[in-house]
Amino acid sequence: MSEVESILIRRDEAGIATLTLNRPAARNALSVALMTEMETHLADIAKDRSVRVVVLGANGPAFCAGHDLKEMRALQSREEVAEVFALCSRVMRAVVRLPQPVIAKVHAMATAAGCQLVASCDLAYAAEGAKFATPGVNIGLFCSTPMVALSRAVGRKQAMEMLLSGHPINAGTAERWGLVNHVVAPESLDAEVASMARLIASKSSYTLKLGKEAFYRQLEMGLDDAYAHASQVMTENMLAADAAEGIDAFLDKRPPVWRGC
Amino acid sequence: MSEVESILIRRDEAGIATLTLNRPAARNALSVALMTEMETHLADIAKDRSVRVVVLGANGPAFCAGHDLKEMRALQSREEVAEVFALCSRVMRAVVRLPQPVIAKVHAMATAAGCQLVASCDLAYAAEGAKFATPGVNIGLFCSTPMVALSRAVGRKQAMEMLLSGHPINAGTAERWGLVNHVVAPESLDAEVASMARLIASKSSYTLKLGKEAFYRQLEMGLDDAYAHASQVMTENMLAADAAEGIDAFLDKRPPVWRGC
Amino acid sequence: MSEVESILIRRDEAGIATLTLNRPAARNALSVALMTEMETHLADIAKDRSVRVVVLGANGPAFCAGHDLKEMRALQSREEVAEVFALCSRVMRAVVRLPQPVIAKVHAMATAAGCQLVASCDLAYAAEGAKFATPGVNIGLFCSTPMVALSRAVGRKQAMEMLLSGHPINAGTAERWGLVNHVVAPESLDAEVASMARLIASKSSYTLKLGKEAFYRQLEMGLDDAYAHASQVMTENMLAADAAEGIDAFLDKRPPVWRGC
Repeated sequence: MSEVESILIRRDEAGIATLTLNRPAARNALSVALMTEMETHLADIAKDRSVRVVVLGANGPAFCAGHDLKEMRALQSREEVAEVFALCSRVMRAVVRLPQPVIAKVHAMATAAGCQLVASCDLAYAAEGAKFATPGVNIGLFCSTPMVALSRAVGRKQAMEMLLSGHPINAGTAERWGLVNHVVAPESLDAEVASMARLIASKSSYTLKLGKEAFYRQLEMGLDDAYAHASQVMTENMLAADAAEGIDAFLDKRPPVWRGC
Repeated sequence: MSEVESILIRRDEAGIATLTLNRPAARNALSVALMTEMETHLADIAKDRSVRVVVLGANGPAFCAGHDLKEMRALQSREEVAEVFALCSRVMRAVVRLPQPVIAKVHAMATAAGCQLVASCDLAYAAEGAKFATPGVNIGLFCSTPMVALSRAVGRKQAMEMLLSGHPINAGTAERWGLVNHVVAPESLDAEVASMARLIASKSSYTLKLGKEAFYRQLEMGLDDAYAHASQVMTENMLAADAAEGIDAFLDKRPPVWRGC
Repeated sequence: MSEVESILIRRDEAGIATLTLNRPAARNALSVALMTEMETHLADIAKDRSVRVVVLGANGPAFCAGHDLKEMRALQSREEVAEVFALCSRVMRAVVRLPQPVIAKVHAMATAAGCQLVASCDLAYAAEGAKFATPGVNIGLFCSTPMVALSRAVGRKQAMEMLLSGHPINAGTAERWGLVNHVVAPESLDAEVASMARLIASKSSYTLKLGKEAFYRQLEMGLDDAYAHASQVMTENMLAADAAEGIDAFLDKRPPVWRGC
């Protein structure tokens, strides 16, 4: 498949892998084919030590419109339906479980599973015109899987408002509620995301992997277990080469040279 | 009991059930009688398929002043005290467990268990002059049951400030912290709540029930279990008549006709 | 040890114990000696019924710079490293478990475990110039234990931004995200904290202890268990002398006289 025709484009540069949803005519709807591509690429990136950070963007007039409704309606059996939602959930969890941080670059509307994708990323930047919605309720199909990610990113009443009304929120509201980190002018979106990606890529990949994994794990624990787990992780981290180098470099006032371990 | 004398008034119109706390002289304090009425009405509504959304409002100078302190002090035994708090907790959980979404319409002060009631609703609209407080600490009785709902609606430090100081917050702060969805002019409160209620009432009641139930359930799970549960719910939903109708109507660009299943 | 030389100063006045980190030249870095002092003082205060509220402040140009990196790098074995993080986690949990509410008074930069300390307090006031950061990623040592407290105080994407970028946030952002309660002019910080401390100290210490303990416990439970626990706590509270006195005083419109039980 040539890159021009790919429904998911990957480009790597200086430790930054950029994945671009590329079904612009379909508003980047998450067809089975696209989700399968995402799963494959994320699995590849997870094993690729040259990648330190991932940017997830999209081409066309929308960021992502969620599931492909025509495709969904054509499914014949419960098993087929269940497999589509299972695939989608695997992709979303793959974003969370990926060793590298993932930054969503949201230039336009993100709807349903598209909104879920933004909520699932570690960080998100939105262009001023971007909107976010979980409108499944409008078509009789509550955004139940999107809400898993949404309700972990914003407050309960705010998530419920999106889910029950189906109404979109604008980028400023998304930032205020915690769904995105920063709202920037459309013409600055690429540069702002690239700047954050380069910053993160300059850190020790070993440290990022250890930290990201611990972050989501400890969130699911009570305080005592969370501290027990995080203390153990921090001890491992402290004994690793990159922490020794990082602390020595800091005390010597020189830039560190990471070994990634 | 004629409606004029009822301490809890229910009025139904076009799929919207409005419950109105009606002990204005007692600032709608949650006496055992009032909580029992609430429990009964909520149980009725849960079984009533003609109701698609519930609005919870109040008459008089306050929205709700919390427990009825004179009544509380007159209780004779540990068992009686425990039963009052058990009843109150059942009412609050009945709001959360109700198949239909519940919108709080808060025109004035909501205190202690009154604040808890707002926090327990799925959505909340507040008039500009409304205030919210958990002032139990002022009378030596920490708002321990109210904080269950409060601490799930706002951040920890913000909840703690309300609980430890007993200070009221105004409607704008409540909106900023996530306790209410929108603050509106007092004269617009009825219309704004009615507008949202009508919007929600226009959705499939089957979809709302499935989605609301899944929302609160998945919130108590870790990410993997939450996705497993939500995927199963979404599969059920997709196979139901209302999703088929909703998707077809969307693809055909016509309004859907819900069957409620 | 004379007070002038103490690395941790305790001063008590009118039921308010003020602990002041006092290693100004080391930016109050949490050396083993300082953390040991904190653990000892917090254990003493936990048993001291004359203390109703604790203020945690710091001397010098920084609030707290986190762990003492020179000391950390000199550690010889995995056991020694693990013990430092275990000690730090014990101190943080001691703040959360302390029967008395703890108010952080943050006049300047709080970094890494210093930021964690702020996040661990029940309430926090920041001076306008104060900043907050979890910059461990810059030295190859992810702020994994700080994030336990941080991720329970602010939203996920906001916590991740601090952890992955290492960038400081200013006091206004910290307030907007929920990490601190109030931002005040530097010259008002002492007075504002003292005012809140006096207010809390005027409450029943029995009620504060019961409520604070229940707050953190119920947060780790599902809704049904949280209500079961909180209802039991509220019943205990209602049967205690201070609630009887508080309610009677309220109904009689006179100030209550607490017995602390």
